Amino acid sequence: METDTISAISTPVGEGAIAIVRLSGPEAVSLANGMFKGKDLNEVDTHTIHYGKLLDPKTNEMVEEVMVSVMRAPKTFTREDIVEINCHGGLVSVNRVLELTLSQGARLAEPGEFTKRAFLNGRIDLSQAEAVMDLIRAKTDRAMNVALKQMDGRLSHLIQKLRQELLEVLAQVEVNIDYPEYDDVEEMTNELMIQNTRQVHQEIERLLRTAKQGKILREGLGTAIVGRPNVGKSSLMNALVHENKAIVTEVPGTTRDVIEEYVNVRGVPLRLIDTAGIRETEDLVEKIGVEKSRQVLQEADLILLVLNNGDTITQEDKKLFEAVEGMDVIVIVNKTDLPQQIDMDELREVAGDHPIVSTSLIEEQGIDQLESSISDIFFEGDIDTGDMTYLSNVRHVQLLNQAKETLEDAMDGMNAGMPIDMVQIDVTRTWELLGEIVGDTVQESLIDQLFSQFCLGK
Amino acid sequence: METDTISAISTPVGEGAIAIVRLSGPEAVSLANGMFKGKDLNEVDTHTIHYGKLLDPKTNEMVEEVMVSVMRAPKTFTREDIVEINCHGGLVSVNRVLELTLSQGARLAEPGEFTKRAFLNGRIDLSQAEAVMDLIRAKTDRAMNVALKQMDGRLSHLIQKLRQELLEVLAQVEVNIDYPEYDDVEEMTNELMIQNTRQVHQEIERLLRTAKQGKILREGLGTAIVGRPNVGKSSLMNALVHENKAIVTEVPGTTRDVIEEYVNVRGVPLRLIDTAGIRETEDLVEKIGVEKSRQVLQEADLILLVLNNGDTITQEDKKLFEAVEGMDVIVIVNKTDLPQQIDMDELREVAGDHPIVSTSLIEEQGIDQLESSISDIFFEGDIDTGDMTYLSNVRHVQLLNQAKETLEDAMDGMNAGMPIDMVQIDVTRTWELLGEIVGDTVQESLIDQLFSQFCLGK
Repeated sequence: METDTISAISTPVGEGAIAIVRLSGPEAVSLANGMFKGKDLNEVDTHTIHYGKLLDPKTNEMVEEVMVSVMRAPKTFTREDIVEINCHGGLVSVNRVLELTLSQGARLAEPGEFTKRAFLNGRIDLSQAEAVMDLIRAKTDRAMNVALKQMDGRLSHLIQKLRQELLEVLAQVEVNIDYPEYDDVEEMTNELMIQNTRQVHQEIERLLRTAKQGKILREGLGTAIVGRPNVGKSSLMNALVHENKAIVTEVPGTTRDVIEEYVNVRGVPLRLIDTAGIRETEDLVEKIGVEKSRQVLQEADLILLVLNNGDTITQEDKKLFEAVEGMDVIVIVNKTDLPQQIDMDELREVAGDHPIVSTSLIEEQGIDQLESSISDIFFEGDIDTGDMTYLSNVRHVQLLNQAKETLEDAMDGMNAGMPIDMVQIDVTRTWELLGEIVGDTVQESLIDQLFSQFCLGK
Repeated sequence: METDTISAISTPVGEGAIAIVRLSGPEAVSLANGMFKGKDLNEVDTHTIHYGKLLDPKTNEMVEEVMVSVMRAPKTFTREDIVEINCHGGLVSVNRVLELTLSQGARLAEPGEFTKRAFLNGRIDLSQAEAVMDLIRAKTDRAMNVALKQMDGRLSHLIQKLRQELLEVLAQVEVNIDYPEYDDVEEMTNELMIQNTRQVHQEIERLLRTAKQGKILREGLGTAIVGRPNVGKSSLMNALVHENKAIVTEVPGTTRDVIEEYVNVRGVPLRLIDTAGIRETEDLVEKIGVEKSRQVLQEADLILLVLNNGDTITQEDKKLFEAVEGMDVIVIVNKTDLPQQIDMDELREVAGDHPIVSTSLIEEQGIDQLESSISDIFFEGDIDTGDMTYLSNVRHVQLLNQAKETLEDAMDGMNAGMPIDMVQIDVTRTWELLGEIVGDTVQESLIDQLFSQFCLGK
């Protein structure tokens, strides 16, 4: 348990109306009070806000005009005393306030340290803490919903329920070990054990099936539009962007900034790959070269391959089909407003199992069917009620995969009549692996590493 | 008086731990309450903070986990009811919360509208409102102090005091107009009038003398380091940056980003011009061309002209002196560690009135004297107690200059024995001009224009 008082800027960096410097720890209130001209913060009620001036105790000079929020333990984010100092959102202003708190004895918080304290003090578990960061980084509403639910404890409850069931299995194992002389007890408990274990196994499998969708919701369905020049790639891009809500974010890179554009297609976040390239030149392949475009294609989760209805299938088209072999592809026959020249039988042969959608982007025809196809590929026919618990975290997926394997070992052991204490080891290991997801059984070094990926002030 | 409820994101844009959506207006509390799952916000005390969940009333779905601050009129920034919703600082999260407030009936606030309401509702005057924005944009502590004091009402009080004195002059004018038959009254009041008017005039002149320093505090003392190659320009730059606190900001430009570096030299914010250029090439003139470098020099408030102690004065040096004629220049004779080759008599002739400082940057000699010279140039010998009221706003300077002129007209009229009602017009006009600074006598269009320069959410 850490016991010093930490301080950090908790709002994004930049110029804005308001910035927040947040303090957490036993000295948070008295420390803030020592530089506050206004009410005596030591005397005020918890969860109250106070207007006043911040003075530098050394010079008695005014540093800022502020609103100070006092929140006392334990009903706070960290379960420690928290003071939030709302000051003007300029770079100098907020840094001065931060420096003042440090000069008064607070320690600069490490990235994620507030959330880490919330975890260490038992307010949230590890999967909830991880969801906090996912929530901040979410690019679409649906991704945010996944994070929100995880933060709200949905995944935690599920995992804890599974762990509880495993504990019951382990209790049955104990009975068998303690009373090996009663055959009828053994028979009964064995059956229960196998049944309970199978239920947990099914639930883990079910969760793992959401992992692909969870990853897509979190990171977006990387989508590349490919096709020969003038088949209508940029028209397709525009149709998708204009019909749907687009979020554009800049990802700073080492050599150049990559612009990522997200569009919501029926709740599926499409992350359009190298949008700018296509938009500007209408020809990704020509612009960035064949080798590079193959790389781009390999990063994609979904390929929209566009053909021209008014033209026959060329060698170039066929090469594109080869390049995207084995991937999720939707074939778009565009320009149905032109007289048909494309040989549909030939196309079906070349396209194989990939769905084919006909569009006339110029006449705004067929976009609905395209969006249905995209939605189908993502949900694989499932109906999403918006109420599912998705696995979106790679760490969780890995742990669940391991848990699934150890549980299968346990089930194999039970079925093969292995000694019960061997089974016990596998079930216990599964229970531990699940515990790592919520942070009940997890190493300190892993915790440090996880929280260090957080942003400052969180 | 505006009466609708406005909403905006009040924290800087970006990823951070916390973001704030702020509501102000008569419906702020009930509107927030309509989407809040937690305590009944209509019933809570003012200036209290409440944890809860934000639900979309249409779908009853959870939108965010939030802390809501309720502050009721009149003790708020806008003097209206204010609700601040602290949510997670992600782009999606904060935009969702904002959209939810809008869908519930709030109107998206215009830039500066919160501060505008604070002004319109009489909590702050116009000069204080302007200081809010200066404070957010301040680049140095001293600039922030100037803004802080202005926000705290220092300038307002001064201006109002002057206006009060002018009102007294006007009262004396009235006496003279009402009782023109009493010569002794006229004589006495005339004397008082002239005396009072002169006092106001002196105070305006004193304020105007701070304008140059105020501008520098606000924008920094644009400083260019010039000199032939290898005289030690980049060493000088490094010495200034390393000895003092540097703030680097990026100013997005149309063709390329300009990097501005601020260093605090004894409280004077030096804005080092084209730092990057010098740093990289050690030769500003060569890099950006003679024509462009003349432009850079013209933007500068201060030139540091560096010469080599180990070399004679060249034609090139003399050309530099010509280029900076009429500007504030400090001549630096660097490399005093080398055997002296420079002819000091010749230098004094070339340098004219410009101060000359000898340094050996390699041996860290003479930097103190240089900093003294910079400080002298800025403060022009005055001792700054840190307690002065500076004029830093161009609008204020213009108004005060106009006020000074009309007041001089009035004084000329009094001295020349002009009809008293002519004097009255000039004094009244002066009173009005001063009123424009604090916003007592100001047009609505100007107010709109001033606040539109604010950032969103302020």
